Amino acid sequence: AGRSLPDTESFAAAIRAGDRRMLARAITLVESTRTDHRAAAEALLEALLPDAGRALRVGISGTPGVGKSTFIEALGLHLVDSGKRLAVLAVDPTSARSGGSILGDKTRMEQLSRRPEAFIRPSPAGRSLGGVARRTREALLLCDAAGHDVVLVETVGIGQSETAVADMVDLFMLLLAPGGGDDLQGIKRGVMELADLIVINKADGDLLPAAKTAQADYRSALGLMRPRFAAWKAEVLLASALRSEGIGPVWERIEAFRQGLTDSGEFDRQRADQAVSWMWRDLTDTVVESLQADAELRAAAERREREVRDGRSTPMAAARSLLEAFLRRGPEAARP
Amino acid sequence: AGRSLPDTESFAAAIRAGDRRMLARAITLVESTRTDHRAAAEALLEALLPDAGRALRVGISGTPGVGKSTFIEALGLHLVDSGKRLAVLAVDPTSARSGGSILGDKTRMEQLSRRPEAFIRPSPAGRSLGGVARRTREALLLCDAAGHDVVLVETVGIGQSETAVADMVDLFMLLLAPGGGDDLQGIKRGVMELADLIVINKADGDLLPAAKTAQADYRSALGLMRPRFAAWKAEVLLASALRSEGIGPVWERIEAFRQGLTDSGEFDRQRADQAVSWMWRDLTDTVVESLQADAELRAAAERREREVRDGRSTPMAAARSLLEAFLRRGPEAARP
Repeated sequence: AGRSLPDTESFAAAIRAGDRRMLARAITLVESTRTDHRAAAEALLEALLPDAGRALRVGISGTPGVGKSTFIEALGLHLVDSGKRLAVLAVDPTSARSGGSILGDKTRMEQLSRRPEAFIRPSPAGRSLGGVARRTREALLLCDAAGHDVVLVETVGIGQSETAVADMVDLFMLLLAPGGGDDLQGIKRGVMELADLIVINKADGDLLPAAKTAQADYRSALGLMRPRFAAWKAEVLLASALRSEGIGPVWERIEAFRQGLTDSGEFDRQRADQAVSWMWRDLTDTVVESLQADAELRAAAERREREVRDGRSTPMAAARSLLEAFLRRGPEAARP
Repeated sequence: AGRSLPDTESFAAAIRAGDRRMLARAITLVESTRTDHRAAAEALLEALLPDAGRALRVGISGTPGVGKSTFIEALGLHLVDSGKRLAVLAVDPTSARSGGSILGDKTRMEQLSRRPEAFIRPSPAGRSLGGVARRTREALLLCDAAGHDVVLVETVGIGQSETAVADMVDLFMLLLAPGGGDDLQGIKRGVMELADLIVINKADGDLLPAAKTAQADYRSALGLMRPRFAAWKAEVLLASALRSEGIGPVWERIEAFRQGLTDSGEFDRQRADQAVSWMWRDLTDTVVESLQADAELRAAAERREREVRDGRSTPMAAARSLLEAFLRRGPEAARP
């Protein structure tokens, strides 16, 4: 970050050519909140927009303990072994607070991280999920423009991050462990309904019967829900990432999903709809982040939150007063 | 609307005293987009805030055909017969476009609507779900302050309206018909996971066996999900609104929910959290509605949406340009 940035055109050209170091710098750039960095980031993204759109975007969610890293490594190795280039990004709105990161551990995905066809990027820190999600969407666009065939976006399964990820990917995959019927394993509400594909991992040895039971349970639960697409019904597969079993079939179903939705026209339609939603979400996220970035406005927001929480002010009066304070700042108020 | 408005204090006093005509006028006032009406509405809501908080807020969702009106009428009559005062509000973001309204039909809830203890209000029209949801939240606060014991918020089951309703109520109920496993009956994704209570209606005569099967299916599907509250696990009940069977037990479980969450502290905590979310949502909804309300900004937004949809502009560049245009308007830009 200390070095001066290349001009937009050379920066874009290096990323198009697959320069990993420059891609990493570009992602650092989109994560920056400095005003000059923000302008450079937007110019770069605009320049690379025509190059993006070819990568398949896959979201993958799973709570700790389901073997997510092992699964991503197994799927990633399967992809690079079949000649594909892969990027792995993470969304983890908790990392800013805990100081940890779901991809910060250097020992994660040890084999995959040594492969030149794989680009692995730890989770960005951020004040809010909105901010983290925005930076991840932009990193996804950069990885796409850099010529990766597949971009995996990983989420840790806390809070609203799954919805944010589902809104930026083509296919959303949920990874579960056998024994999903019990409360400790129970997945967060709303997450199952986002899934285009559920994979029961650890389906080997003693756990195989439990994995098959979980498969049947989730299949019947999915049968109660209206499918998201005309051309695709959510499927439940078994795999053992540790033994590299069932990984090929998972990838085949992902390809079948892409083909089916492409044929029905739903693939491009979902992407166009996502882009428009992204625009509106980016606009409102910017308002909230800008309020939080200004010390005076942030203090006012905290005061208003307390009043609303205690029932001393209506939410709408509090919202109006905050918005008016924001608007009094004028065009300069929109922060990166 | 043609008559002049009473001053805030007399208006608030009439509503506190249970004047139905004044309550209806107050709801019309919060639905108005005129700037002077908006200021009067906010003053009135602020004045009534200390009187609100006693009503139990229940959301109820169900797709057409499940017998929702009949069920609400049966539940409503059960409540007024046991001495309670009830308000019924509706969220229907489609009514503005279709010209129809889920509560517009005068023949709906014929018996309930003749009872003086029941206040039934048709769905507000609005440009966006955000706008409709905001007006409904405000109408809910008014009905609460007017001394109703229960406020039912009905939603038609289209789009994101269930999430909006779940965010404003204490308990969210999902009404289903027997035969839920089939695709035509399948509920929209994400809705089941919001439910604190699922009621299978039409559980009588020939449909009783199918209703029992549906009950078992939904019970096991809910068993796969993590409960929203420590003190409550979602339940699945059977009822026949047409025969007024099972209505008392539904109300008993709603009371048990309230008691359980009150004892655990989750009841008040959910309300405080909802109020804070409401503040932020109101702020961002106001930004979007204000953009849509200004002819020039709306035209710019439509142009930007097309560019984003066609891949000619990044969503973030489009968002930034719209936000800057909005901010150039200054404090006057925040519309009702």
